[in-house]
Amino acid sequence: MPEFRQDLITGDWVIMAQHRAHRPYDCDGGSACPFCPENEERTPPAVLTVEGDTGWLVRIVPNKYPALTPEGAVVEGRVGPYATLTGVGFHDVVVESPDHDSGLATYTVEHLAQVMAVWAQRYNQLAADPRIRYIQVLRNHGRRAGASREHPHSQIMAMPFVPDRVKLELDRAHSYRRLHNRCMYCDMIEHELQAGARIIIADSDFVAMAPFAPKMPFETWILPVRHQASFGQLDSASAVALARVVSALAKAMKVAVDDPPHNLVLRTAPTQVAPDEVESPQNSYHWRLEMVPRLSTPAGFEMGTGVFVNVLTPEDAARCLKAAVCPV
Amino acid sequence: MPEFRQDLITGDWVIMAQHRAHRPYDCDGGSACPFCPENEERTPPAVLTVEGDTGWLVRIVPNKYPALTPEGAVVEGRVGPYATLTGVGFHDVVVESPDHDSGLATYTVEHLAQVMAVWAQRYNQLAADPRIRYIQVLRNHGRRAGASREHPHSQIMAMPFVPDRVKLELDRAHSYRRLHNRCMYCDMIEHELQAGARIIIADSDFVAMAPFAPKMPFETWILPVRHQASFGQLDSASAVALARVVSALAKAMKVAVDDPPHNLVLRTAPTQVAPDEVESPQNSYHWRLEMVPRLSTPAGFEMGTGVFVNVLTPEDAARCLKAAVCPV
Repeated sequence: MPEFRQDLITGDWVIMAQHRAHRPYDCDGGSACPFCPENEERTPPAVLTVEGDTGWLVRIVPNKYPALTPEGAVVEGRVGPYATLTGVGFHDVVVESPDHDSGLATYTVEHLAQVMAVWAQRYNQLAADPRIRYIQVLRNHGRRAGASREHPHSQIMAMPFVPDRVKLELDRAHSYRRLHNRCMYCDMIEHELQAGARIIIADSDFVAMAPFAPKMPFETWILPVRHQASFGQLDSASAVALARVVSALAKAMKVAVDDPPHNLVLRTAPTQVAPDEVESPQNSYHWRLEMVPRLSTPAGFEMGTGVFVNVLTPEDAARCLKAAVCPV
Repeated sequence: MPEFRQDLITGDWVIMAQHRAHRPYDCDGGSACPFCPENEERTPPAVLTVEGDTGWLVRIVPNKYPALTPEGAVVEGRVGPYATLTGVGFHDVVVESPDHDSGLATYTVEHLAQVMAVWAQRYNQLAADPRIRYIQVLRNHGRRAGASREHPHSQIMAMPFVPDRVKLELDRAHSYRRLHNRCMYCDMIEHELQAGARIIIADSDFVAMAPFAPKMPFETWILPVRHQASFGQLDSASAVALARVVSALAKAMKVAVDDPPHNLVLRTAPTQVAPDEVESPQNSYHWRLEMVPRLSTPAGFEMGTGVFVNVLTPEDAARCLKAAVCPV
């Protein structure tokens, strides 16, 4: 069973998951691939499936080598001066398509919208578990971005506590709202739409922008224009609008930056507090999806200070990506 | 000129350093290498040199493509809702040896001690600049660990503010000291020496140990056994003792883990407050050198939550490395 361990010195938590050392890395489609059709019995049974006319379109299955497991209670422990926590949670794999060679830049908008709607559906199922406090939706593409399998997939991991970096951001957002009586993210979006220099795509529902202080070249944030604290609030119309922007961005990234290895990282409010209670601290958050190409390698300076050195300005990155966006 | 930019949402700072995009990546020794002997005019003039009988042994030169530059004052700025800071600081390269093909695992202990004594000497020079608040000593080995050059070198970067993650750790250490009237790090070392399972090398001066909650397989911390807040306090006898441990560890890492790409990351007290004032918050810190192999790739989960998934326990890592340490 996996275990959370806390570093006494830094306060950082890690997950010790020795059994994951044995997970296979294979990248051929067809019979070798457990995510391809006809190999369904090689994954644990699906917890959620979207069926099409000729078979499944999207499947969510528990990870065979999970970093967190759903059995049991969340129990705090001690080893000498150190704190531990049972590795309780969920670790799902979203097999996004039966087509081994498809991906973000080739899905139809309708298909991508289905994937995203399924993310939200599963998000809400997991958020209902009283042990769960934070849910991380993510997608790793390419070996340099940490992907161990080529078949297009994303992951949903549900945790029994709110990570410090989410807490810190939420505190910051809540302080801002109490001070200005406005959402920090809504204010940023308004400023960016007026400034224009870092906007890549914008419509009435979503904006895709290079952040003012990106850690990596071509880092892009996608945010709902209308205030929404939690990704769990995404409805099916919004899923289509989101898919439209992500699809256009992925295509532009492929053209302009040569299909870079990248991560999609969802950042959303913690679970357990109803985000539609307008006065709740939770509602100071405003979710976003980050697309982060892995074109540079954080090294000793970044590890030591947490301060990243970035050689590409967001203004140059936005200009380059914007020029590569196809008008649909 | 480089610029610090702060993210409004997360509070994180980055350095925008466009000119570094043009830095060359070449890895052949001899005439092509600006760090090899007889090519000294291809680097900026040395700020510190250790001379041997037949030429220099160690040279510190300003980085030709610096992430921070020493000219001017530290000036805060504003761009819309965002904060900026002039990119004032120092970015030195320590050319550790005239021998292009040498490295941590092949230096003599005496030579490595000279390199480390020079780190401390330059550290203290930079700490005397009133604009400097934190100094990061680091060493990147191998392309996967972010090194752009093969010739053995380390780097010293001096910053005009204390990074948040250093502040957070210092706050934690200071709270611990006020509560227990003891150093958090000294207590950890004492516990580890008694427990034994995570100790790789220990003598009366330094301990090399796998931390209880490592982010990466084979992550190792080297700490002075006697309390010392700042790396700047390292004297020449301690430099020899430190070199003995780092040399043995580097050799063990080479044998046991096949010369992995890795980073050395120094973590030390901020500058500007005399660390020998026993009551100063600064003195709650206790410096350490981390050696972190880059055998796994942090991906979407780590980026989203800051929580790392590690597939190798520190107990297994320590056992493996300890078995590979040569008795000297």
